[in-house]
Amino acid sequence: MGGDNAPESVLHGAATALIRHPGLTFLLVGHEGRLKPILNGLPALSGSARIVHTESVVAMEEKPSVALRQGKQSSMRLAIDEVKEGRAFGVVSAGNTGALMAMSKIVLRMLPGISRPAIVSTFPTLKGDCVMLDLGANVESDARDLFHFAIMGDAYARAVLGLSRPKIGILNIGSEEQKGHEELQQAAQLLRASGVDLDFRGFIEGNHIPEGEVDVVVTDGFTGNVALKMAEGMGRLGRFYMREAFMSGLFSRIGSLMAKPALKAVSEQLDGRRRNGAMFVGLNGIAVKSHGRADAYAFSNAISAAVELAAHNINDKIIREIGRYTGAPVIASAHAEAPIAMPEELAGKALH
Amino acid sequence: MGGDNAPESVLHGAATALIRHPGLTFLLVGHEGRLKPILNGLPALSGSARIVHTESVVAMEEKPSVALRQGKQSSMRLAIDEVKEGRAFGVVSAGNTGALMAMSKIVLRMLPGISRPAIVSTFPTLKGDCVMLDLGANVESDARDLFHFAIMGDAYARAVLGLSRPKIGILNIGSEEQKGHEELQQAAQLLRASGVDLDFRGFIEGNHIPEGEVDVVVTDGFTGNVALKMAEGMGRLGRFYMREAFMSGLFSRIGSLMAKPALKAVSEQLDGRRRNGAMFVGLNGIAVKSHGRADAYAFSNAISAAVELAAHNINDKIIREIGRYTGAPVIASAHAEAPIAMPEELAGKALH
Repeated sequence: MGGDNAPESVLHGAATALIRHPGLTFLLVGHEGRLKPILNGLPALSGSARIVHTESVVAMEEKPSVALRQGKQSSMRLAIDEVKEGRAFGVVSAGNTGALMAMSKIVLRMLPGISRPAIVSTFPTLKGDCVMLDLGANVESDARDLFHFAIMGDAYARAVLGLSRPKIGILNIGSEEQKGHEELQQAAQLLRASGVDLDFRGFIEGNHIPEGEVDVVVTDGFTGNVALKMAEGMGRLGRFYMREAFMSGLFSRIGSLMAKPALKAVSEQLDGRRRNGAMFVGLNGIAVKSHGRADAYAFSNAISAAVELAAHNINDKIIREIGRYTGAPVIASAHAEAPIAMPEELAGKALH
Repeated sequence: MGGDNAPESVLHGAATALIRHPGLTFLLVGHEGRLKPILNGLPALSGSARIVHTESVVAMEEKPSVALRQGKQSSMRLAIDEVKEGRAFGVVSAGNTGALMAMSKIVLRMLPGISRPAIVSTFPTLKGDCVMLDLGANVESDARDLFHFAIMGDAYARAVLGLSRPKIGILNIGSEEQKGHEELQQAAQLLRASGVDLDFRGFIEGNHIPEGEVDVVVTDGFTGNVALKMAEGMGRLGRFYMREAFMSGLFSRIGSLMAKPALKAVSEQLDGRRRNGAMFVGLNGIAVKSHGRADAYAFSNAISAAVELAAHNINDKIIREIGRYTGAPVIASAHAEAPIAMPEELAGKALH
């Protein structure tokens, strides 16, 4: 029920994801009276989905603390509960980010050794994809949080990008050692002094992200969120420039017709919808946040992200890495074998 | 003498700027033995420039505090002194940003009523240019600083973009009132409660910058610096995608030849060199920082930025606005009638 285009975009997104991942099943948590008519128009999805009815919804502008107290029967909360109970692999939502984070943290709890969750996603660069975190789970992060983000980002990059030794950088406003916030200096010292087996490359600057200088960009949630959304807006600006330029003269128009597939490829690469879906890492379960503005195509990509993370057992990888660096015992996450699930929305009971 | 390509790029940049602004004259502050041979190859510039010799240079990685103490004879310091003494309109440098800021602050001093300087520049959007500050003069900014940035950004947008009533937004990670750092909330309250005559539109998010939601983006120097450099890197990524796509097949290649002017236009719009040059606002004199990586073309644009700011009497406008909001007496800036000057580098003794 969350996001600007729900529940239509969510159900159509689920139908699209089902074509991509034929074995997937969904728990659609939300108002049956609104979901049923849409579902009836999607016969393939109907056969792979079950509606979990609730009338309560977390509003987009609701304070997370209020949602936590008053939203116990909300579609968002019930969907997270499905993951907690092991009836779903993961939860996907386009709803209120703060509420989804707060509820997921309370219900699913943190992975052992991690103090704060982070929002992580992949990002395009000149040299392939990189991973960036935190993208907005926290407004402030201390050195210890940033240190954990580095470890979780490393695990995420290994799992999702398939890298054997990801290069890690801390986002700063200069590569010199004396620059930036105190906590960034301390985090860099922690990474160097703790003897962790990470390929830590020191500080990077904003331009180094799209330039592909590192595979994992570590930052506080405020800066990461601004950088991510800035890039999203820049993608839109680039596409606008292209449209303008190719409509500007006869030769350009003819040229643009001939080069249509190329133009389309560039446009798609600049299209934020293609990589919709950010994971909350550090939690004992898979929770993926879709962009609130997501249409069906974008939402289907958020579902694919959840499927990929479940298939890669991302949390087991993080637990193993954290255990290696902190000396904590290596235990499996509670839901390593549980199915993917999604709120308001979608929940696949099985992956294949 | 500052920047990756100095002094060649600086002198060639000055020669290019001279074609654009024929009346301009320069003080080239730096090592005569290195500047003279380059200048000899640029006869037009030779006639409009005078070398101010010094052997001392501020290194790119020097701490600002060290540069302040030990760099009194450096090209950077002597160039700023030229502005202070009224022999130059402004100073342009591609050197050490922190040192340039610290020296400019000590030598030129702050405008009355302003506690901290900010780095400001224009930025492309879907709806024309906007102004963003601070881009890295400060690592942290309190509510009062952000309030001043809003007033200075408003004056800058009026002067440089010619807007009669610029829309102002504070960069945050959500448009909701409860989000973001405490100082952002306080700054928003200050702007609303102080009765200043600004068109304050509340909080904006990263994507709203290139989308042109506001004309003036107010942010702390850390976030602003990351956002600016992220956009710079995204521009490079967009140009890379275009090159890749148009080389991908015969039709695309032919199409790209036909649409070459359009492609070039897009490429130029995504080219960070086009809008090189950020001003230090809040100081009693014009100081423009060029990107350290600037080539001659980029450096010439930093010079043009300085010329434009001098021509618009930007500081007088800021003093008037600040005076209006704080009740401070309206006095003219010391160097309103002084010529433009540049360190290591270039200094035009007259604008026309």
